[in-house]
Order: sequence, then C-alpha cells, then structure tokens
Amino acid sequence: MSKSCDFCKIEGGYGKLIRETPFWMIFLAPSQRYLGTCVVALKRQCKNLSDLDDEEWKDFIDTLRKLEYSLKEAFNPTLFNWSCFKNKTFRDGEHNPEIHWHFHPRYQDKVKFIGLEFEDPDFGYVPQPINVEVPDEVMMEIKEAILKNL
Amino acid sequence: MSKSCDFCKIEGGYGKLIRETPFWMIFLAPSQRYLGTCVVALKRQCKNLSDLDDEEWKDFIDTLRKLEYSLKEAFNPTLFNWSCFKNKTFRDGEHNPEIHWHFHPRYQDKVKFIGLEFEDPDFGYVPQPINVEVPDEVMMEIKEAILKNL
Repeated sequence: MSKSCDFCKIEGGYGKLIRETPFWMIFLAPSQRYLGTCVVALKRQCKNLSDLDDEEWKDFIDTLRKLEYSLKEAFNPTLFNWSCFKNKTFRDGEHNPEIHWHFHPRYQDKVKFIGLEFEDPDFGYVPQPINVEVPDEVMMEIKEAILKNL
Repeated sequence: MSKSCDFCKIEGGYGKLIRETPFWMIFLAPSQRYLGTCVVALKRQCKNLSDLDDEEWKDFIDTLRKLEYSLKEAFNPTLFNWSCFKNKTFRDGEHNPEIHWHFHPRYQDKVKFIGLEFEDPDFGYVPQPINVEVPDEVMMEIKEAILKNL
C-alpha cells in the first residue's frame, strides 16, 4: 500500500482541522507565512479536477465562498490565491495524487492579530512554499477567528 | 482609467485565443514552458472567486472538464495544475484584479510533438513563472491539437 498523502486523514492529518463539509475537509495549514492559509482537501482519492462530480463541485464552491467571507471578516486580506497542484506526490516515486486546494490569503499591508504582526513578504507574486510555523496557541487563535464567521 | 490586464481583451489580448464560452475565454499562454499551458479568463471584471455566480461556475467547470480531456488526448500529460492568483495587478500600483485561471499540464517524461521535444524541468514542483516562447507556427500547431478534442 502506498504511503498516505500529507492531506489525507487515513494516517494522521494535516495541520489543524477547522471544519468538515459533506465532501471536503478544511485545514488550517501548518505554515502561516500568509496569515490564515488553509487547505481544502477532498475526502476521497481523485486524480483530476475533471473527475469531481457536480455535488462535490457545489460543496467546494459553497466552502470557497464561506472561507473567503470568513477570512475577510477575520483579517481583511487584500486578495485571495487559490491553487490545486498535486505535484508533491510525484517527488518520491509515489504516484497517488489527491485533490486539495491551497488557499492563500494575501496582504498588501502588515496585519496585527492578538498582538502579533504578520507580513506578506511575497505580496504581488506567487505564494512561496516556505514553511513559517507559529506556536500552537497562535494556531488555535487563528482557527477560532476563522470559525467565527465560517 | 486604469491599464487593462494582460488577460483582458479590451486593449489587445493575451496569447492565442482558442475558444470563447458564454462567460470565459480560453487562451493558449504565450509561455509554453509546460506544453499546452492555457489561461481561462473571465469575460467581466471580478475580484474574487466568491463573487462568481452559479452560471459562471457551471460554465467554468464544463470548460475545465473539456480542457483536461482535450489535453490528455493531445499530449498525454501526467497531471494538471490549476491556479487562480490575481497577484500581478498589484505590482505596479494598479489594483484591478481579474479572474483568470492558469492551467499548467505537467509532464513526468519528455513529450514529442511535431518533431519537437518538450520537457517539464520543474516536474513535481510548483510551476515557475519563467517565459519560454515557441515560434508562431508551433503555437498554431499546439492550438490546433487542443481544438481537435475541445
């Protein structure tokens, strides 16, 4: 059996689970280089977006709308980046791509949250896969702030 | 009046227009670093994906399914990357984001097309915004190959 994906819950999890919908799981991503970064992962194995069925799309669109609204209320980012890449599974010889969306809120200006200052060092450019972790209690506060309007 | 986006048709265009749908335009991207790279651009100004209405989403999903099928038939890529970023408009002081999707087919192995060999130098990693242009007659051949099953 192949190793499970970072985003798959079968053997552990990924970041902090914020909410489950009928077809998707919303995680607060381990890296908070961009405050409020989440991953929206499909609950089943699926290689391509064209293989999603209509119900899965409908649920994703609903989730996307709620997430953008909730993040706007929580941290007022300047804009949102969405991407569905599925590249990582090919690095180690495993070929088991899964559908997960990376949701990166982006910030033109510094933003303060619970006394901490967050910057977006790459604003105006594609999000960088550089890991920036914050203490667990800060993760919990970010999760709560997102949940407030989700 | 602000400058128009690269993807907007108001003042020119972007790459080679392959097809129009009711709400979207499919362009063959000027950079073919990843053979078959396209941009799917919304026909109206819209800042966030959460502002798309249901008809626009439905048309996008239909376009995505057709594009993935058509590319698979034409070049048999290993997988597909999709992203909606809207970052570039913020680089020059203009703040006029538009919805366009970057569609990057990705290739584990070299692929031959009309006697030319294409590689994916970044396979397994996020697509790089590095410009690789091909001669106009090759662009026309790629466009025709995509249109065959679109």
